[in-house]
Amino acid sequence: MNGPSPLAVQDIMTNDPVHAPMERAQEWAAGAAYVIDRFVPLGEAAVPITDLGLVRADAVYDVVSVSRGQFFRLEDHQARFARSCDRMKLSNRFTQAEEAELLNELVARTGLKDAYAWWAITRGTNLPHPSDRLHAERFKNRFYAFVIPYVFIKDDADRQAGIRLHVSKDYVRIPANAVDPRAKNFCSLDLNMSLMEAGRAGAEWSVLTDGNGVLTEAPGSNIFVVRENKITTPETGCLEGITRLTALDLCAEIGLNVEVGTVTVDDLMAADEAFLTSSAGGIIPISAVNQQPICRGSGPVSTRIHNLYWEKRWAGWHGTPVDYEAVN
Amino acid sequence: MNGPSPLAVQDIMTNDPVHAPMERAQEWAAGAAYVIDRFVPLGEAAVPITDLGLVRADAVYDVVSVSRGQFFRLEDHQARFARSCDRMKLSNRFTQAEEAELLNELVARTGLKDAYAWWAITRGTNLPHPSDRLHAERFKNRFYAFVIPYVFIKDDADRQAGIRLHVSKDYVRIPANAVDPRAKNFCSLDLNMSLMEAGRAGAEWSVLTDGNGVLTEAPGSNIFVVRENKITTPETGCLEGITRLTALDLCAEIGLNVEVGTVTVDDLMAADEAFLTSSAGGIIPISAVNQQPICRGSGPVSTRIHNLYWEKRWAGWHGTPVDYEAVN
Repeated sequence: MNGPSPLAVQDIMTNDPVHAPMERAQEWAAGAAYVIDRFVPLGEAAVPITDLGLVRADAVYDVVSVSRGQFFRLEDHQARFARSCDRMKLSNRFTQAEEAELLNELVARTGLKDAYAWWAITRGTNLPHPSDRLHAERFKNRFYAFVIPYVFIKDDADRQAGIRLHVSKDYVRIPANAVDPRAKNFCSLDLNMSLMEAGRAGAEWSVLTDGNGVLTEAPGSNIFVVRENKITTPETGCLEGITRLTALDLCAEIGLNVEVGTVTVDDLMAADEAFLTSSAGGIIPISAVNQQPICRGSGPVSTRIHNLYWEKRWAGWHGTPVDYEAVN
Repeated sequence: MNGPSPLAVQDIMTNDPVHAPMERAQEWAAGAAYVIDRFVPLGEAAVPITDLGLVRADAVYDVVSVSRGQFFRLEDHQARFARSCDRMKLSNRFTQAEEAELLNELVARTGLKDAYAWWAITRGTNLPHPSDRLHAERFKNRFYAFVIPYVFIKDDADRQAGIRLHVSKDYVRIPANAVDPRAKNFCSLDLNMSLMEAGRAGAEWSVLTDGNGVLTEAPGSNIFVVRENKITTPETGCLEGITRLTALDLCAEIGLNVEVGTVTVDDLMAADEAFLTSSAGGIIPISAVNQQPICRGSGPVSTRIHNLYWEKRWAGWHGTPVDYEAVN
């Protein structure tokens, strides 16, 4: 039933640093960060304890992955980050070109070929006069970034076998009229708590509803449901994931019937296949929902999209090569 | 109509450090922190950039105020913090006595007589193996704390005149079935954004509903509505504020008719008086809601509770004197 297996990805990836001409201390290979206008090894990177990004989760961020020395859809991530900033009235003192240069330099400093580049803008330190806190433009927003080695949220074995998903009963996703999930932000206590609920239920990942039986998103990932030759992913209450966008592109390219719309728990329970999409793992097939099997291993659609995703990425699709010489 | 004015509080408070026997560098008077097992001046206090308390708002916290050298309701804050930890499956490596001692030492190091003491437990650094992230007990939670000078969210002039409140139209409060507000946590982007909406509307503070016309809470504060000799504060969707508890106690002590229940926007618009309660300001009367006056200045009930609140605090009610000699 299942056709070919998903490509083994982890075995082919390597985080051995490339050897760029300049000498790099071992400490940089573990990660690099940009904090308060300085490049530092990750181990030294810290955020002032009073930063509103911490104490009030008042911030937006984005994460782009690097595979085999290439950023994937960097411009799309940057465009989304700019929209996140606009939605939360945070201002970026860097242009998109400067931002890209900074992220490149961080990757170059680590030498990592497979990495995450994370960056954020926080509201900054709280203002001494409370009346100033009513005005976005009076804050001095802060830009932070770091690069760390790539880690799959689910490894090859899980992607071959498919993962067991738990639909959270204890938590609903923070609704868009409270905190708009299209602005990628830190408020994810609901998502993190649902992971632990999934653990208690013997599952491997969770997905959250809106409280009315409609699926929203999973921790760090979007969900796709394949049912009767139609593929659907939630339209609202979720991040506009770049891997979600990529899966939509790939479905269209293959000629599959795909749409963005309402997806219910019932749709998921009755699905032929389902998968998660995430920069931290690509395409992740689902084998069971709430302990009910929905597919043996990775189904044919999931496998096809998974393999195409990695084949095209490695062929340079939407890739921006990291310039490993660009270390100032 | 209004009777006596609220006590002038700010003029009577002082943040001149007391002069304890040991020498203290100027830098400690600006604030002190406890970060990764070390006491440091606030200016040096920072949280590792990968801490889940930052990147996922995966943390709980509490804040207790110190006035005239006394913590106010320290044990109640500590008990609430313990409940917050339980709700979010975070573990505190300190006993309540050790925690109190640590907060005392932080205040003592600053020498401040009027201060906030903030403390938090974060999930800690993310675990390398995603499957471990399903189990709360596998994380190494981190304890952070800092003490800073007390700042009123609204000063005496505002408390005399009452503040103009804006009922947010753009944001609802994160619902309890997503992130339980009784566990005091960092997810407050909704609250912070509503403050900026209030600023645009010419108001001085905001309050959020549940999206169905029922009031929940205001940034950093609870709301009380006085209508036809009955005082009501929201029961659900809000923090169980310690100043809210104190206002309930004071209303009962005076013999006022007070209850915890459902409070609608309509109740607020038709109120005789309304006020906010917060550790960062005590009792804050409201003079207008959505540009419609509801009370000239501070109304008689608000004034009475405000004055009683400070008089009793300064008389030592629920006070724990700071031991300024306790600096290890």
